[in-house]
Amino acid sequence: MLTMQDALLALTKYWTDRGCMVVQPFNTEVGAGTLNPATILRVLGPEPWRVAYVEPSVRPDDSRYGENPNRLQTHTQFQVVLKPDPGNPQELFLASLEALGIDIHAHDVRFVEDNWANPATGSWGLGWEVWLDGLEITQFTYFQQAGGMTLDPVSVEITYGIERIMMALQGVSHFKDIAYAPGISYGEAFGQAEYEMSRYYLDDADVESQKRLFEEYAAEARRMLDARLPVPAHVYVLRCSHTFNVLDARGAVSTTERAKAFGRMRTLAREVAQLWAERRTELEHPLGVAEVPAAAPVPTEFPKVSGTRQLLFEIGTEEMPPSEVTKTADAVRTALTEKLAATRLGHGTVTTYATPRRVVAFVTEVQAVEPDAERVVRGPRKSAAFDAEGNVTKAAAGFARGQGVGTDQLHDLDVDGVEYVAVTKPDPGRGAAEVLSGVLSEIVSGLRSDKNMRWNDAKLSFTRPVRWLVALLGDQVVPVAASTLAAGRTTRVHRTAAQPTVEIAAAEGYLDLLRIHGIEADPARRREQIVTAAQELAKAAGGSVDVEGESALIDQIVNLVEEPTAILGSFSADYLDLPAEILTTVMRKHQRYLPVRDADGTLLPHFVAVANGSVDEDTVRTGNEGVLRARYEDAAFFWRADLQTTPETMKGELDKLAFEQRLGSMAQRAGRIGRIAESLAGTVGLAGDDLTTLRRAAELAKFDLGSQMVVELTSLAGTMAREYARRAGETEAVAQALYDMELPRSAGDPVPSTTPGALLALADRFDLLAGLFAIGAKPTGSSDPFALRRAAAGVVAILREHPELRAITLPVGLAAAADQIGAQGIEVPAESLAEVSEFSVRRYEQQLIDRGDDHHQVAAVLPLAEAPATADETLAELRRQVETEGFAELVAVLQRVRRIVPADTDPQYDPSKLTEPAEVVLHEAVQKVSPAPTTLAEFVPAAAVLVEPVTTFFEEILVMAEDSDVRAARLGLLATIRDLAAPILDWQALGTSLTS
Amino acid sequence: MLTMQDALLALTKYWTDRGCMVVQPFNTEVGAGTLNPATILRVLGPEPWRVAYVEPSVRPDDSRYGENPNRLQTHTQFQVVLKPDPGNPQELFLASLEALGIDIHAHDVRFVEDNWANPATGSWGLGWEVWLDGLEITQFTYFQQAGGMTLDPVSVEITYGIERIMMALQGVSHFKDIAYAPGISYGEAFGQAEYEMSRYYLDDADVESQKRLFEEYAAEARRMLDARLPVPAHVYVLRCSHTFNVLDARGAVSTTERAKAFGRMRTLAREVAQLWAERRTELEHPLGVAEVPAAAPVPTEFPKVSGTRQLLFEIGTEEMPPSEVTKTADAVRTALTEKLAATRLGHGTVTTYATPRRVVAFVTEVQAVEPDAERVVRGPRKSAAFDAEGNVTKAAAGFARGQGVGTDQLHDLDVDGVEYVAVTKPDPGRGAAEVLSGVLSEIVSGLRSDKNMRWNDAKLSFTRPVRWLVALLGDQVVPVAASTLAAGRTTRVHRTAAQPTVEIAAAEGYLDLLRIHGIEADPARRREQIVTAAQELAKAAGGSVDVEGESALIDQIVNLVEEPTAILGSFSADYLDLPAEILTTVMRKHQRYLPVRDADGTLLPHFVAVANGSVDEDTVRTGNEGVLRARYEDAAFFWRADLQTTPETMKGELDKLAFEQRLGSMAQRAGRIGRIAESLAGTVGLAGDDLTTLRRAAELAKFDLGSQMVVELTSLAGTMAREYARRAGETEAVAQALYDMELPRSAGDPVPSTTPGALLALADRFDLLAGLFAIGAKPTGSSDPFALRRAAAGVVAILREHPELRAITLPVGLAAAADQIGAQGIEVPAESLAEVSEFSVRRYEQQLIDRGDDHHQVAAVLPLAEAPATADETLAELRRQVETEGFAELVAVLQRVRRIVPADTDPQYDPSKLTEPAEVVLHEAVQKVSPAPTTLAEFVPAAAVLVEPVTTFFEEILVMAEDSDVRAARLGLLATIRDLAAPILDWQALGTSLTS
Repeated sequence: MLTMQDALLALTKYWTDRGCMVVQPFNTEVGAGTLNPATILRVLGPEPWRVAYVEPSVRPDDSRYGENPNRLQTHTQFQVVLKPDPGNPQELFLASLEALGIDIHAHDVRFVEDNWANPATGSWGLGWEVWLDGLEITQFTYFQQAGGMTLDPVSVEITYGIERIMMALQGVSHFKDIAYAPGISYGEAFGQAEYEMSRYYLDDADVESQKRLFEEYAAEARRMLDARLPVPAHVYVLRCSHTFNVLDARGAVSTTERAKAFGRMRTLAREVAQLWAERRTELEHPLGVAEVPAAAPVPTEFPKVSGTRQLLFEIGTEEMPPSEVTKTADAVRTALTEKLAATRLGHGTVTTYATPRRVVAFVTEVQAVEPDAERVVRGPRKSAAFDAEGNVTKAAAGFARGQGVGTDQLHDLDVDGVEYVAVTKPDPGRGAAEVLSGVLSEIVSGLRSDKNMRWNDAKLSFTRPVRWLVALLGDQVVPVAASTLAAGRTTRVHRTAAQPTVEIAAAEGYLDLLRIHGIEADPARRREQIVTAAQELAKAAGGSVDVEGESALIDQIVNLVEEPTAILGSFSADYLDLPAEILTTVMRKHQRYLPVRDADGTLLPHFVAVANGSVDEDTVRTGNEGVLRARYEDAAFFWRADLQTTPETMKGELDKLAFEQRLGSMAQRAGRIGRIAESLAGTVGLAGDDLTTLRRAAELAKFDLGSQMVVELTSLAGTMAREYARRAGETEAVAQALYDMELPRSAGDPVPSTTPGALLALADRFDLLAGLFAIGAKPTGSSDPFALRRAAAGVVAILREHPELRAITLPVGLAAAADQIGAQGIEVPAESLAEVSEFSVRRYEQQLIDRGDDHHQVAAVLPLAEAPATADETLAELRRQVETEGFAELVAVLQRVRRIVPADTDPQYDPSKLTEPAEVVLHEAVQKVSPAPTTLAEFVPAAAVLVEPVTTFFEEILVMAEDSDVRAARLGLLATIRDLAAPILDWQALGTSLTS
Repeated sequence: MLTMQDALLALTKYWTDRGCMVVQPFNTEVGAGTLNPATILRVLGPEPWRVAYVEPSVRPDDSRYGENPNRLQTHTQFQVVLKPDPGNPQELFLASLEALGIDIHAHDVRFVEDNWANPATGSWGLGWEVWLDGLEITQFTYFQQAGGMTLDPVSVEITYGIERIMMALQGVSHFKDIAYAPGISYGEAFGQAEYEMSRYYLDDADVESQKRLFEEYAAEARRMLDARLPVPAHVYVLRCSHTFNVLDARGAVSTTERAKAFGRMRTLAREVAQLWAERRTELEHPLGVAEVPAAAPVPTEFPKVSGTRQLLFEIGTEEMPPSEVTKTADAVRTALTEKLAATRLGHGTVTTYATPRRVVAFVTEVQAVEPDAERVVRGPRKSAAFDAEGNVTKAAAGFARGQGVGTDQLHDLDVDGVEYVAVTKPDPGRGAAEVLSGVLSEIVSGLRSDKNMRWNDAKLSFTRPVRWLVALLGDQVVPVAASTLAAGRTTRVHRTAAQPTVEIAAAEGYLDLLRIHGIEADPARRREQIVTAAQELAKAAGGSVDVEGESALIDQIVNLVEEPTAILGSFSADYLDLPAEILTTVMRKHQRYLPVRDADGTLLPHFVAVANGSVDEDTVRTGNEGVLRARYEDAAFFWRADLQTTPETMKGELDKLAFEQRLGSMAQRAGRIGRIAESLAGTVGLAGDDLTTLRRAAELAKFDLGSQMVVELTSLAGTMAREYARRAGETEAVAQALYDMELPRSAGDPVPSTTPGALLALADRFDLLAGLFAIGAKPTGSSDPFALRRAAAGVVAILREHPELRAITLPVGLAAAADQIGAQGIEVPAESLAEVSEFSVRRYEQQLIDRGDDHHQVAAVLPLAEAPATADETLAELRRQVETEGFAELVAVLQRVRRIVPADTDPQYDPSKLTEPAEVVLHEAVQKVSPAPTTLAEFVPAAAVLVEPVTTFFEEILVMAEDSDVRAARLGLLATIRDLAAPILDWQALGTSLTS
């Protein structure tokens, strides 16, 4: 059996054989190998660096007295940094697993999107967690920024979680049972330290002393920065950090202190990084400067192709995030279509497919060459091209010479009625390969995702590294150069294949060729394979998979594999005692397993995992079952621990949870939510049992954030609140309200089913929106860390579904929130509230458009959207009315009135000035309509009386009478009509859609 | 080339293959791998433990900004702990060097005595520094005690100094040039950190902050001990220690603070150790209990030997300290002789030889058996053995039965005139093997040295482990069991031999057999080999070795090798610019090299090193030359640094040097010495230039202890003072006085040549003696940490050689010292001063006895020894007088007077009571002698007049007259004579040596 120390040695050997230097763990506590200066400082600047080391990583908060099977205050990381990115770090990593004796052909090894960010130090990177049969064994990151500085070159950081790996390899279920060395277990070697340091961190560390230490360390770090000594400064920043973590584990950090401490550490860490980089520059980069990979030569010669052929263009990447797979396929199709359209090259349909590792585009029937064409070049104006005698002027002669033609070639050209001279030149069509070369190169350069990264390529930027290109027109390679990449005919198949690269003979056979190598490029077919296999397996286990309900998950799985291999796994039925939401959350969110249910929808103790490629199914099943068991064991541990306490006690924990620096702790936020909800309850006159329910639920609001379960599985917030509230003897209504208040979690999720729940959910979101907009933390571009778009969409969704809460318009709700936030001393400007309101209305508009509503009609009701239920009802009525006879006329009349009347015209007039019959009739009709009903349904029949008088009025009356009094009266009459109609909807927005 | 990281991996691999577990360096700064809990805590208690790890060891005081080629604030240790001692740790260690690619056949690898003690934590061990061609590469220790607790089992601790080893293996002369990893040097990897941390430790660390940190850490350690958590407590003790080291490097620790800090750390460290041991016991020793090696079976059958044969007895050890080699050979010879004498076994001469690894005893002509004998057993008194009727009593019958004989066998026995009954029984002689088996076993069990240790043997205890025994009587093995060891015929030769064990056919061929294997067991022959070879080599280099002057060093070398291989090495003549004492001190003390000098005694740039065994001479030469170069480079660095400063500045450094906790800093001691010297100068009426010299030298006293050179090479104290004083422009007299004050350094060393120097030297030693006796730190047994015996011997030697200082008796000198010590608030009791005086007189006595003086004469002058010069003169005169006619009579007369007169008789009498002629004559003779001269030379002729009258007096006068007045007068007369003679010497002590 490979012991843990053997494993560490094997990794060390493996990486040193690949040019890594070995350093020792740092001699002050670090929370992760990343913080060792061998990573966090060395990734800065241009010097190359390859290092590997063991790092016992200390996380006081993970102290469990050695009792929890998977959690330790000190766990062992093996850290590798490759700077610059060697171009094949994933392959190197996989081989390192083989060096550990892991049969990567038998196991399911996967790269699953996982990004890393430490905003406190201005550091982030993109990458994956690496799964071994569903178990996260390694963090793999392309380090993009550190200490606020963009990294150039980019470093690859590989962090192995050694205890995890050993537990999996040795098949043990508690870290203490890991065979650490021959004849000595992990528990025997380190058990006492684990217990004692847990005691220290959780129970015994002296809080006041640690606070003083923090101050000493911070001050010393500051002094060292001033002395321009980044190395000792970094040591003291690490000490600050560890001390802070100790205080945190002791539960001794208030929100204010946390914010202050983070602020100080952030500043110090950034300065350390900057100073280090400066010092290295002053030292003239003792390790030299990393080489930049050479750009591929720009193609200058292109093969000739005859006849029409199919184009295959494959962009080979490292594993893209599932959400980017489909988006990128769409984007490439669009870009290819548009760029081809900008050429004269004839072609058939453009199709794209994608897997995690490739985006594939096909273009059928690509013509061999562009047709020839002519190009007209405009010269000087004709008046300037010839003098009075009709001779060619110098200007015109110069133009002709510039175009390489004689003046006899000049001809006339009329542009918008102006006469010019011009030259018409032949524009011969280019060969298909030449055309495609440019187009495809631009497509690669133009790849973008929501979050882009850089790698060892000097110019490309994408969601993950692009590693190869295939461009074949029929059987000919299209020369394409994109930065360092040059297209060829070599594709890559499974990394574990005997021959991981494959030559493609011709575009036409590509998909089948890939299938021979076990790869299905077509996502639709992968989906079908997954669904079919999963249902078969579930059936064999006496159940089924809810394909519709799990649609989003299946979409994700489709984009996580190139060759789906569904595997049925099981878990102990004992875990079915846990709330089903816990079980499914773990399966879906953490493991991407499909739950199996019986005919009643009750969970069965089975799951379907989808591996990639032809693995050893028993091995992978056993592995995945083990992972699920550990996760369920963890969950059961939290469940039992939480049941030992009360909702009130859990709520007490909220004091320690920071929400946002300025907006305070989660306890403060929960308090505000409760008060806002009560205020809104007043607005809608809530009474009786509902009011009682609301008040109690408000008291407990968000308490489950203080439960161990929710700390671990955040997405169970609300779900656990309901569970724990029930078990604590709260009424079902209170439990349900606490559950409801977290709804909807995402677009399409149900909204709260109860009024108290809806009020709490609204209060929650109004607080979030008003608060964060007030402090300037509104979303920008793709950055929406507090999910404010989702919150606003939630507000709108709730208000739409709860017409009984109509009195709570967006401004009313936000004002209630602003009151509570203001009471905390944070100013909430009126403009900021208006901005939130507008922001929310946009979400409403989006919801309607997404549902397929007519955009004219949507625009028409938007002015009502501050009360979304009202807008909804108006829109529904509008859809009915547009089918109604006469409505189009009414709309046309009202639009015409609005067009005629200047916007600043007051709706007042002196009826005595109206003397013409048509205007008198109209006046009388207006009188009948006034005061106008406020709903569309009532307004339309009432306003019907206006249609004919208005029409007659416009036929017979000149509004702009010479007599100013008369004119004013006529305009006032029309303005009155305008204003009667205005509150109903935006008539103008309906445009001519009804009439044309 | 083996890079440093390769070396670390190779060692890790090597030791894990031998059952060591690997742990990580500790995650707080430690000064040595020993302090990692994997050593310092795990050596405690009965649990087995084998561990190997890298430990970057942080010593702020060694910070040199990365400039010094050999000194780093962080150096890399590779630490191995084997618990229990596996029995062959040296062999395991040597094989580890081979794993590093070191050809141990070509190199000279040696185990050179080096003991380790950390009194602060109650920890110590015995072992060696391992030399590779003269370079210390490893510390090898049998850990005996930790945290005040005796270790059982004993652990072997092996600490490799990796940078040292790498520099040697790679042949580089600066640590920065070590190839750390392929393509990256040590300097490139760690140079910046080395510089910056040096800056931090030496210049920039905030002293006040560090002091506060020390307090926080100590308090937290205390709290954790109270919470019974030894692991976090240990962490905080380590932090205390590092913080203290930082303060020390910043020069910020006063003597008082140092003492206080050490006291606190000592207490904490001991409590941590004790608590850890307790906790492991409470946990029931999770790793089990180490097995105790079985005792060898006690022999019950013995071979028969015929004729007389030679006995060979070889005790095989690990490398003994040179001083123990000879002593052990002597002790074994004595013990063997005495123990054999207690048997009836006939034998010839007993001879012993010794090398570092073996003590060999030969006994010639051992008889095959003991002669038979009889044994008389005494019974009851005859009077009780027979009743009135002459019948045997019950008592006598019982006695006979007990002896297994009939009552008819009882016979008479006269003991001192009392009659007993007795039985005479045959006592048959045992075979030689049986006799020797017991004797030899006792010799092994009885082995003792100045400082003894334990190893994996349950019962033996010696200077180093005993690993094998050979006992051969002729060609027969004598069965000997000593604890776990059983004697055989297998000896061990060089560990690097192809076959390191050799069978011995018979005792008679042993020495030659060893010689065949390259080992010379006879120290005299080794000495001869060394001297001859060294002279030949020196001659080849144009010089010679001062065999007489280097005698002590040669004696040491003889006991450091089993097969001397002298090698001539050279160093750059540039270093000859340094003072010769520096060069020779380094050669002798550190490297055991013999200096080579030209005919004038001037140093040549060569040395003779003596390797062990048949090494590759070029390799060893190169290695040794490199070591010497590095050491000279270091010395040159200190020399230049010291010359940049002044004696006054250096003296300022003495504030930071602790002398003894209660007696204060070295600065305080130097101050006292100066004042005592001035006081003594007054006693002797020093004046003129000498007084001026003394005063200036007193001001500078001990200043060179503050020089870098003396900090490094303590034995150069005084030597450097003279050098630096001269260069600072002091007078030659002052420079010489500063040099002189450190003399004599050891027995036989010259004393100060100048009076000012002598006064300072005396003051130095009086201060030391008076101070340490006053605080109860006098030597006990073999423990004399402050070398007070040497100090007292020095005082005596100086006073003997400087009769002009006669006024400074021991009490006068000590009183002057006591005044100064008292002024510092430390009480110096009169008894304590008397004790020092007596202690010093014993040294004087020893000096005389050692010189071979007659012990009667020595005893006679001892009462004068408080003024040793006077005692010396008297002794000289005594030696002259004893040859003189009449002296014996004078002595006899004086002795007779003294015997007759009761001690309490007053020397007063009424002459009128003396009426008999003989008493009147004597009275008149006494009158002539009174007052008596005070020197022996004058006293003897003056007192000659007494001889005859006294003789006559005793013949004719009855002293004890009946008349009490007469009796009193006669006794008073004799007492007067007694007291006239008493101050001259102790006449009684001369005994009858002169007359018989």
